[in-house]
Amino acid sequence: MSVHPTTQPIERFAAVIPAGGIGSRLWPLSRPDRPKFLLDLLGEGRSLLQATQDRLAPLAQTTLVVTGQAHVAAVLEQLPQLGPDAVLAEPTPRDSMAAIALAAAVLEHRHGPMLMGSFAADHVIPDAEAFHRTVRAAVEAARGGAVVTLGITPTGPSSAFGYIEAGAPLPDAGAETGGTQPSGALTVTAFTEKPDAATAAEFLATGRYYWNAGMFVMRTDVLLGHLERLQPPLAQGVRRIAAAWDGPEREAVMAQVWPTLTKIAIDHAIAEPVAAMGGVAVVPAAFEWDDVGDFDSLAAMLTPGSDGGIVVDRHAATVFDGAAGSMVVGGSRPVAIVGVEDVVVVDTAEALLITHRASAQRVKDASAAVDAARNVTKP
Amino acid sequence: MSVHPTTQPIERFAAVIPAGGIGSRLWPLSRPDRPKFLLDLLGEGRSLLQATQDRLAPLAQTTLVVTGQAHVAAVLEQLPQLGPDAVLAEPTPRDSMAAIALAAAVLEHRHGPMLMGSFAADHVIPDAEAFHRTVRAAVEAARGGAVVTLGITPTGPSSAFGYIEAGAPLPDAGAETGGTQPSGALTVTAFTEKPDAATAAEFLATGRYYWNAGMFVMRTDVLLGHLERLQPPLAQGVRRIAAAWDGPEREAVMAQVWPTLTKIAIDHAIAEPVAAMGGVAVVPAAFEWDDVGDFDSLAAMLTPGSDGGIVVDRHAATVFDGAAGSMVVGGSRPVAIVGVEDVVVVDTAEALLITHRASAQRVKDASAAVDAARNVTKP
Repeated sequence: MSVHPTTQPIERFAAVIPAGGIGSRLWPLSRPDRPKFLLDLLGEGRSLLQATQDRLAPLAQTTLVVTGQAHVAAVLEQLPQLGPDAVLAEPTPRDSMAAIALAAAVLEHRHGPMLMGSFAADHVIPDAEAFHRTVRAAVEAARGGAVVTLGITPTGPSSAFGYIEAGAPLPDAGAETGGTQPSGALTVTAFTEKPDAATAAEFLATGRYYWNAGMFVMRTDVLLGHLERLQPPLAQGVRRIAAAWDGPEREAVMAQVWPTLTKIAIDHAIAEPVAAMGGVAVVPAAFEWDDVGDFDSLAAMLTPGSDGGIVVDRHAATVFDGAAGSMVVGGSRPVAIVGVEDVVVVDTAEALLITHRASAQRVKDASAAVDAARNVTKP
Repeated sequence: MSVHPTTQPIERFAAVIPAGGIGSRLWPLSRPDRPKFLLDLLGEGRSLLQATQDRLAPLAQTTLVVTGQAHVAAVLEQLPQLGPDAVLAEPTPRDSMAAIALAAAVLEHRHGPMLMGSFAADHVIPDAEAFHRTVRAAVEAARGGAVVTLGITPTGPSSAFGYIEAGAPLPDAGAETGGTQPSGALTVTAFTEKPDAATAAEFLATGRYYWNAGMFVMRTDVLLGHLERLQPPLAQGVRRIAAAWDGPEREAVMAQVWPTLTKIAIDHAIAEPVAAMGGVAVVPAAFEWDDVGDFDSLAAMLTPGSDGGIVVDRHAATVFDGAAGSMVVGGSRPVAIVGVEDVVVVDTAEALLITHRASAQRVKDASAAVDAARNVTKP
């Protein structure tokens, strides 16, 4: 009997899913009590969080979700197969480094050194097979001690993402550590912030730049080792919490230590300084990826009907008349769009949004403006 | 003690208010069971029907509303002061001539010959004083036997209205019949259908054309006399119904006669043929008038807020961000419009409409399309 190797989980590989962020440019679909990762944005019957877990389940021997205290119940309801031990609750948000380092420390305390991959709960990757191949390659590269990031092959000079600059191929560590495939990993020479469009075009012309999707694969001991050196109090804090996590002192230790942890993103705490010393690799990823940051990118991921309109998560008639490129999200009443192209209509019980796809980035402010106006108009 | 003459009702003058028409370009605000005339379109706390009656009450000694059987209860609820005798119910619609002629015949049967004015229930005339002056002038002209129409002074070459072509001044009949003011009425030489824009511009250049708002003032005996000559079965039919109206046979006679009445508009039955023989006069009216035919004309009648947006009949926050000229009608949830100018959003319990003001005429089709789509998507 033979089993195809890619259908098996990766030995000692843990998936870590930071589930944070409201997705405020997706208001009123997303809200503080109903963040983006809990939403079935694509109308596929699975939330972004569920789709993320679906994608990782074939690869990982164990999974940890790190989320805000307020969302633990919803996460467990959406992912009942994980069980409560798999959800790490943050009493307050302390940025991505604390979340990912806590997961690393809990994994190591429970299982000893592991390989881990951190993947945001609210991204969309339609091609799971290609994702699996890329993660397996990244794990091979990570066995040798690199912090490995997945670099998305750009489809255009986007100014919405940070970029990863790649250099020479990483000396392949796969064979030494039991891997069977060359990883294709390249040494990262730099991470850059979101560029302007002209700079982004220059990046693309070199063929050496990838989009930074914030996906990291590494050994827990490598991550915690870098952290010990670069952010010692943060490393010691998460180790202290991890040691108490599965015992009766968890709550007391969390209450004491968590609020003291340095608030810093993994990019600044680990990725950038470790890249500067040659310790970060990138595995080029050819799969389609989107962080679905706003309603325009959501619309772009969906296929319009013969009337040119896009319908998401609705159970009522939708009429598009001279409304090509328009999208209606949610709602249980009939909706008619007449003579307005590229408009986005989001119909929720709490609020109604009408925006142009070109203005979708500005939706972030609308929620605050509605709150302010609501207070003004209250009797 | 002196009383200003214009504060008194006009002797033997009856107001007739045909309350029909759904206003289908105002869907989903208007619907078959909630026609335009019952709506408080301007958010003033009075429906168009109530505002029409408010405007006529100071002039008329009596009022009749002619409406569909289905709307009698709503009309009486909105105008309880009139009482059931003032509402003539049509079992089925048989166009404007039958409705107005029935009112004339009922008035004459109840009171003997009267002066009457017919004014649609769903038009907007902000300046009641100017309206009163014009109607009084029209009544003076009508005393002498003319069918008198109120001609709206055009504010532009609209192709949305029919036009009235005026000729020589009517020999003033005011003094002969007890009137105190010259009426200013002109003989009508022709009525025209809605012209194209170029023709409308030519009309305006002559200074002899007025918009036809469908407002007619005449003696009941003059109207019924013309009808007897031009549409004898229709005249005999309404006289038969009127004779039975206030007795026990009303229902039986209506059931027998009403369905046989000729379906014809007053324009074709009376106005055009009587004008051809020199019997119609027009009193130029300088007041602002609109039939509020669609959401664009509604928006044009309202004053935008400092954010450029227009809000009608809402009790929740409304945020306009880069949305000048946009209008939100109805709804009890917060609405945000971001980066879409001149858009119309109509938020009702039954349906949601998004249209551009320039496409407002096409809304008529949306209701049917929604019904069709609703049937298709039903499980």
